[in-house]
Amino acid sequence: MGLYVQKFGGTSVGSPDRIRAVAERIAATQRQGHHVIAVVSAMAGETDRLLRLGRELAGQPIDREMDVLVSSGEQVSSALLSITLNHMGIQARSMMGFQARILTDNVHTKARIARIDADRLKEALGTHDVVVVAGFQGTDADGNITTLGRGGTDTSAVAIAAASNADVCEIYTDVDGVYTADPNICPSARKLDCISYEEMLELASLGAKVLQIRSVELAMKYGVRVHVRSSFSDAEGTMVTGEEEALESVVVAGVTTDRNAVKVTMRSVPDQPGMVANVFEPLAEANVSVDMIIQNISKDQATDLTFTVTRDDADRIGDLTERIASDIGASGVVIDNEVVKISIVGLGMRSHAGVAARMFRLLATEGINIEAISTSEIKTSCLIHEKYAELALRTLHDGFLANESSV
Amino acid sequence: MGLYVQKFGGTSVGSPDRIRAVAERIAATQRQGHHVIAVVSAMAGETDRLLRLGRELAGQPIDREMDVLVSSGEQVSSALLSITLNHMGIQARSMMGFQARILTDNVHTKARIARIDADRLKEALGTHDVVVVAGFQGTDADGNITTLGRGGTDTSAVAIAAASNADVCEIYTDVDGVYTADPNICPSARKLDCISYEEMLELASLGAKVLQIRSVELAMKYGVRVHVRSSFSDAEGTMVTGEEEALESVVVAGVTTDRNAVKVTMRSVPDQPGMVANVFEPLAEANVSVDMIIQNISKDQATDLTFTVTRDDADRIGDLTERIASDIGASGVVIDNEVVKISIVGLGMRSHAGVAARMFRLLATEGINIEAISTSEIKTSCLIHEKYAELALRTLHDGFLANESSV
Repeated sequence: MGLYVQKFGGTSVGSPDRIRAVAERIAATQRQGHHVIAVVSAMAGETDRLLRLGRELAGQPIDREMDVLVSSGEQVSSALLSITLNHMGIQARSMMGFQARILTDNVHTKARIARIDADRLKEALGTHDVVVVAGFQGTDADGNITTLGRGGTDTSAVAIAAASNADVCEIYTDVDGVYTADPNICPSARKLDCISYEEMLELASLGAKVLQIRSVELAMKYGVRVHVRSSFSDAEGTMVTGEEEALESVVVAGVTTDRNAVKVTMRSVPDQPGMVANVFEPLAEANVSVDMIIQNISKDQATDLTFTVTRDDADRIGDLTERIASDIGASGVVIDNEVVKISIVGLGMRSHAGVAARMFRLLATEGINIEAISTSEIKTSCLIHEKYAELALRTLHDGFLANESSV
Repeated sequence: MGLYVQKFGGTSVGSPDRIRAVAERIAATQRQGHHVIAVVSAMAGETDRLLRLGRELAGQPIDREMDVLVSSGEQVSSALLSITLNHMGIQARSMMGFQARILTDNVHTKARIARIDADRLKEALGTHDVVVVAGFQGTDADGNITTLGRGGTDTSAVAIAAASNADVCEIYTDVDGVYTADPNICPSARKLDCISYEEMLELASLGAKVLQIRSVELAMKYGVRVHVRSSFSDAEGTMVTGEEEALESVVVAGVTTDRNAVKVTMRSVPDQPGMVANVFEPLAEANVSVDMIIQNISKDQATDLTFTVTRDDADRIGDLTERIASDIGASGVVIDNEVVKISIVGLGMRSHAGVAARMFRLLATEGINIEAISTSEIKTSCLIHEKYAELALRTLHDGFLANESSV
């Protein structure tokens, strides 16, 4: 007899019929002799409806009360699911965040889970076959209702799976797993049977569509096996696990593009010691995350310094970068929005030489110019003009992944 | 500086505009230097919407989860009101039942408040000008969410006023007070400035439209002054208080009709000792409340025994009364639905003789036959044919109340 945590998103509980289908799925697991902790989001559209109501009454509604407001959505869906399960003859009960003792910090609207008192969940499972926990919500140390931010129900589910030592945390969603690339752009993209936590984190733009990134961090930290699968079929999805479980580690697990990068170039920076620090210290003080950094070869005692920031940060650093340029005697600043970051990710890159070189060659073959490069242990990223985004994705995917028989 | 408890029903918080109007009213009280505890119902229509959702998923949805489901309605309205107050610059915070420590028994969907830990409310009032409490809900000793039954927000408000030693409990509603009779039937009906708890309880059919009866019992028990008033005007409404405050106690405060009575007659009951007990003991065991009882004069060692029950009970006691009749040797049972109970209520009846006689005379003058009579210390009720209901109401109201200059 095992313990399954099953997370159902807003679309999965979006109507009475959908709730019945979810209840059937839970019932099937329970009939196999397992206990189930279901973790649910609000019915699709409900959170947005509540946010609109709140914003209609105040342009900047107070965060504490917005948490009280929107957390009601998960209260409704968890009650409805529990009602349906009981109607089917299954002993089920709902638990709100305060009842399941999901303790968070006090950062309203984007709280982080500090601790879960699993005794409450275990107590409930002692008398019930199924416990339905309202996702996305918790309480802080003073008993205020908090919420975990968009996609927070994933994090609730993984944290509950960790606290209750569940065998697996199943994330039911409207796609059937994690793909080697976005199938809308790359027709040869394949569903992965298995992926490591590290790869999943690096495949942010793919991962974000199916899993809140924080939930992956939490799964990695506590070794929770996460099974991403479709709520509309019984097919196996993608298992996200520690790398020791990913038996046949492949060189490249996936290719992903990130349109959130903006390229900033500081022209003719005087080539003197300490200059680069003079550029990046003020940016760090302004809380700007810098991703890729390139310093070109010096010419006439000056060099062009290029780096990337996120789009949000780019909007607010125009003045700051101009001031820095003036302070250090650079000739000016150019901000380029028409770029995209394309990355290949795979645990195998650590042990396979030449992967980056092959990436550069594949892009060059298609005449795609590389504007910047950055690497991590399991990822290589290139900044390219955004007009090449789709072409580059298909080229790299087919070059690295299309001919592999399995992943 | 005082403490006001202000209760707002579903219509009063039924839309963003209405919520703004409620916030303005609270702000006006706060500007006068008072603290306010607002107690709110769900937005009009929301509780019914949630009940429908629950019943769509299960014919007989489990009570515990229905409480989780419907209590979300008050969570939403209290958060929205608190958002609006903060937007107006008023320090306000919402409290759910579990946060305000509104402890109830564990009878889901119709729980009774056992205790309120006022320390939590006082703590919140120490840092905020206004506390908005979700009405209708509490938690039992095990932390389960409970609700108090239809109209339960009145009871929440009175209980909170009692626990927090508030100066007054204002019940804002869509009528402007308690009337001497239903103004829709009796054009000369007048709003009462003041009424005693006892009279309010007896005027059930009038009172039920503006106040849940349990809230009046609670107000009487703890001496909470309840001010029933309109949420659409600033006019004074009706103050419900102890009789010592009702300075000029009138003979009759109001006239009310009750269409919930059904007349049951057991024919030719043998006139022997213990016979009446043989009839009413089985009814009591079946949890049937019997109201009026009349035993006619015996004739041929047999008598007709008449009593009234509520309509709900009448539907389920057909077989039981037939069996009782057969057991005691009565000749049969006649159930009459075409009756109405009309009552006059007033503290002054205790000290004024002849009030009942005057009632009978007024009805007789209009040719209205009295089928049964019952009296309490401050109420006299007559059972009449339902076709006379409106005529009897106007006749008694004009006979007792139309010429009094004040009440």
